[in-house]
Amino acid sequence: MYRVLATILIITAKPTTQTKRDQIFHVPLNADGSISFNWLLDYPNEMVTFEIHIPASYGWFAVGFSDHGEHFPADYCLLWKDMKSRVHFEDVWADTGGMIHLDRQQDCGRFRVKRVRNTTKFTFQRKFDTCDFEDYVIEDGTTHVVWARSADPLYKPTGLNISSPGEDKGMVRVQLLKNTNVEASLPGYVQSKDILAERVKVPADETTYWCHVHKLDVEFRKKHHVYRYEALIPRTSEGLVHHMEVFHCVAPPDEEIPLYVGNCFAQDRPKETQVCKRVLAAWAMGAPPFTYPEEAGLPLGGPDFNLHIMLEIHYNNPERKSGFVDSSGIRFHVSPKLKAMDAGVIELGLEYTDKMAIPPGQEAFPLTGYCVSECTAVSLPPEGITIFGSQLHTHLTGVKVYTRHVRDGVEMMELNRDDHYSTHFQEIRRLKKPVKVLPGDALITRCYYNTEDRDNVTLGGFAITDEMCVNYVHYFPATELEVCKSAISDHALSTYFNYMKEWEGQDTSWSRAISDNYQAIQWNKMRVQLLRDVYQEAPLSMQCNMSTGDRFPGYWENTPLTPILTPQPPPFRTC
Amino acid sequence: MYRVLATILIITAKPTTQTKRDQIFHVPLNADGSISFNWLLDYPNEMVTFEIHIPASYGWFAVGFSDHGEHFPADYCLLWKDMKSRVHFEDVWADTGGMIHLDRQQDCGRFRVKRVRNTTKFTFQRKFDTCDFEDYVIEDGTTHVVWARSADPLYKPTGLNISSPGEDKGMVRVQLLKNTNVEASLPGYVQSKDILAERVKVPADETTYWCHVHKLDVEFRKKHHVYRYEALIPRTSEGLVHHMEVFHCVAPPDEEIPLYVGNCFAQDRPKETQVCKRVLAAWAMGAPPFTYPEEAGLPLGGPDFNLHIMLEIHYNNPERKSGFVDSSGIRFHVSPKLKAMDAGVIELGLEYTDKMAIPPGQEAFPLTGYCVSECTAVSLPPEGITIFGSQLHTHLTGVKVYTRHVRDGVEMMELNRDDHYSTHFQEIRRLKKPVKVLPGDALITRCYYNTEDRDNVTLGGFAITDEMCVNYVHYFPATELEVCKSAISDHALSTYFNYMKEWEGQDTSWSRAISDNYQAIQWNKMRVQLLRDVYQEAPLSMQCNMSTGDRFPGYWENTPLTPILTPQPPPFRTC
Repeated sequence: MYRVLATILIITAKPTTQTKRDQIFHVPLNADGSISFNWLLDYPNEMVTFEIHIPASYGWFAVGFSDHGEHFPADYCLLWKDMKSRVHFEDVWADTGGMIHLDRQQDCGRFRVKRVRNTTKFTFQRKFDTCDFEDYVIEDGTTHVVWARSADPLYKPTGLNISSPGEDKGMVRVQLLKNTNVEASLPGYVQSKDILAERVKVPADETTYWCHVHKLDVEFRKKHHVYRYEALIPRTSEGLVHHMEVFHCVAPPDEEIPLYVGNCFAQDRPKETQVCKRVLAAWAMGAPPFTYPEEAGLPLGGPDFNLHIMLEIHYNNPERKSGFVDSSGIRFHVSPKLKAMDAGVIELGLEYTDKMAIPPGQEAFPLTGYCVSECTAVSLPPEGITIFGSQLHTHLTGVKVYTRHVRDGVEMMELNRDDHYSTHFQEIRRLKKPVKVLPGDALITRCYYNTEDRDNVTLGGFAITDEMCVNYVHYFPATELEVCKSAISDHALSTYFNYMKEWEGQDTSWSRAISDNYQAIQWNKMRVQLLRDVYQEAPLSMQCNMSTGDRFPGYWENTPLTPILTPQPPPFRTC
Repeated sequence: MYRVLATILIITAKPTTQTKRDQIFHVPLNADGSISFNWLLDYPNEMVTFEIHIPASYGWFAVGFSDHGEHFPADYCLLWKDMKSRVHFEDVWADTGGMIHLDRQQDCGRFRVKRVRNTTKFTFQRKFDTCDFEDYVIEDGTTHVVWARSADPLYKPTGLNISSPGEDKGMVRVQLLKNTNVEASLPGYVQSKDILAERVKVPADETTYWCHVHKLDVEFRKKHHVYRYEALIPRTSEGLVHHMEVFHCVAPPDEEIPLYVGNCFAQDRPKETQVCKRVLAAWAMGAPPFTYPEEAGLPLGGPDFNLHIMLEIHYNNPERKSGFVDSSGIRFHVSPKLKAMDAGVIELGLEYTDKMAIPPGQEAFPLTGYCVSECTAVSLPPEGITIFGSQLHTHLTGVKVYTRHVRDGVEMMELNRDDHYSTHFQEIRRLKKPVKVLPGDALITRCYYNTEDRDNVTLGGFAITDEMCVNYVHYFPATELEVCKSAISDHALSTYFNYMKEWEGQDTSWSRAISDNYQAIQWNKMRVQLLRDVYQEAPLSMQCNMSTGDRFPGYWENTPLTPILTPQPPPFRTC
């Protein structure tokens, strides 16, 4: 991944810009890599230059963006040939029925096209925000790149329907607005340690989770720092490897863990490997290398460190092709020469508990997890911590996540936001501006869920069909604080169930489990709105925990929501 | 009003109960008073005995309850004659199409019927809460009594449709669950002072507001206390007088105010009478006398008191009959012998401002007004105040109002609630349990609005088409605190408008008035939900004012919402 392609056009198109090859980003749009998507960021002008390579046999090719990966409604730039094989390029949009319309304002600019053997390469430029309400705004976080094509030329673009069953189409998630200010070079003493899969015969299934437990060498009995990690993906696997994570197996230092290799969900996966769940590295398609900041590194190894780590690869093979053999993995750049500080991870958001739930049939139901002022006050050092990275996390129904930052009632810059979040694209992202968090600050994480295709309530919990709302923040210097999460107070929740029973005739009961109570409710508009209001107003039950699992001293039941007295203005827009 | 009728059946039906005649309540169900509705409360058993008088010529007569006065869906008891003139009495309900169905559980109990000359009198008993989800629950606050009748006998009740255009029907609002613990007798030295209309020729219009400015005698140069007030309504006007209020004209003591008599909305009403707007007494159809508690009286008169007061009568004449002549009014029971304390009024809820608004098309949109902890802390005496009465107030779209009471994060008993509120039925109600409010307590008033028949946003404000959310609480001893109301902070509101402009393409602007900004928004589900969320979370701009209009010392901008850490359980139900 993140390779240098023959992106000749971008470079020739902008000869005056100091275009570094390593600032051209790349992602394949289909599994065989025959459609490639490359882009160059121009932050000062809030502009992207795209270069797209497609087989030259196209009749038309549409590439664009949509909120959550749907092909319509969506915003496209359309390359098309007319009946006389003349090439056109236009800014179009697909309505809720898939019909293509020309944008009144044309924002797919500076179009150039070139044929190189059997490949057509074309470039165009687009502002992050074209200020056209028919266009998608390119924002921080996830962007869903959608494309469709056909071999047939067009008479004119209007009248084309992108929902036609015959179309060849696809979608890829990327972080378009990458952080370009990350340190490029590493000290000479840094070595690489590769954690790879070994010639995996990828099944002809759409989804495969492959697990491979490794044991680090004895040199890791000495503590190392991770300076950077990155994906290693052979060219032939480029469209196939969807995401990868490396987990530490949390166990006493000398405990042996079976070196399991196989499907993660196989019956015969040893249950001893279930302890391999503390995330060390996470990569998703399109992600660049993750580099730790100058000041700190991720501890790996040491006298108390169990040496087993597990690589998990999610293969995505929607065409169910057989014959793929893969040896992808993660390369850690490490050294026993330690940086000034250890980096650490704090979990923000909601406790993993069924106390929080999402009714069915919701388009965007919010759940909010608080790291309250009272918790950071007792747990952070007086000089505070610096958060430099963030991994947002929900399960299947999460569609939007953000974390707000409050100090003395005044809202600071948001810590992170992804308005187009997808569970299938969880990168650890370097923040463009590291965030200083002081004792007494609050961090409020809100997730929105779409449950339109669920028949009953979705509970908080660990299963993939349950939900979570978490922001794993990466920071330095490491402190004792590991979990700063909330749930609704028990008292407020039983009051809600009690009301549902007494006044709405629902089959909820004191003697039942929380999950049974949620499931017993026949959801209607009023009951949903009441739950939403209760969640928004009720006090909290707080987890303000050390890495040992112990709570920090304090009374953490019935904690008030940290108020935001002066909210941030909405992000500035130059329209 | 509140007269002793020939309610012989109730008394004979329950010979063992100590039924006092003055505990039988009465309201006419139609304008000529030929249908009368009488009831007796049995609080220990949570039971009502009804006695209804109707002309004996009925074929069927249905009487019951609905949430807001609609004839369907509604819960009825149905008196009907079959083809052989046999009398039946059944518990039925009308579905959303008006079709009548038999309840599976029959809760119109202890039926008795008797014919007295041309009148049929029947009684029945019903639990406040029958625990049948097909039945209406009789609750504190307003009850909408609905009725319908026909001269035709029935073959059977099922198949009857209450929405048939030929039916004779009506609706009356009453407080069914009256406070029966109010002092009955007054000291001998209390005198009466009647403020009456004089032979008003009631127009043949559905709605007439009649205004009559009176000047009190010079004896009121000396301060009096009101011990009680009650409606005086001639028998012939019983169904006609919908509500009455007496206002004090707030002006320097010797200023003369024109003694206007006429339509309140007439062009020639002198504008000097607009100062007559401080409520002294409020009565609505079905309301009993309002008696001040032993400890305190309402001050009337005194050296600084302008002697002018204005009676306002709302005549409701839906059949537009002409020829009604009315001399109704209010009787004040007063004395210059003062009680231990003055009673006072505090306004709780929302400021009268267009900073709060309700989007169109909403079934039940909430607005919440806070009397925050910080305000009562600086304004109430250390021993607190006792609230003994409450008048809930909204304009046309209000459907539900309640006030919560919070002390140190713990929610106390609700101060008042009306889940079936109507702007057309605003009584000052004696609380069944007086509420002690201490410095530092918070009182949170929430109103719900139905704007399904509005095309654009409904703003807060003074006009009848604007909205308010107020609870006028009557208390002793009188203090300097007169207004404890809130609105959203200016900062939070401009942030919302700014977001609407920048990210939703709405025509809102910094340079526009708040009302223009609200009106510029094209409302959709998302924008409504966001406004609702902003109102629920944003800090407040507080009015914590003395009767002089000055604010109490303090910083009242960006005040946090007083949190409720331990909410009350839902009201107990014995099902």
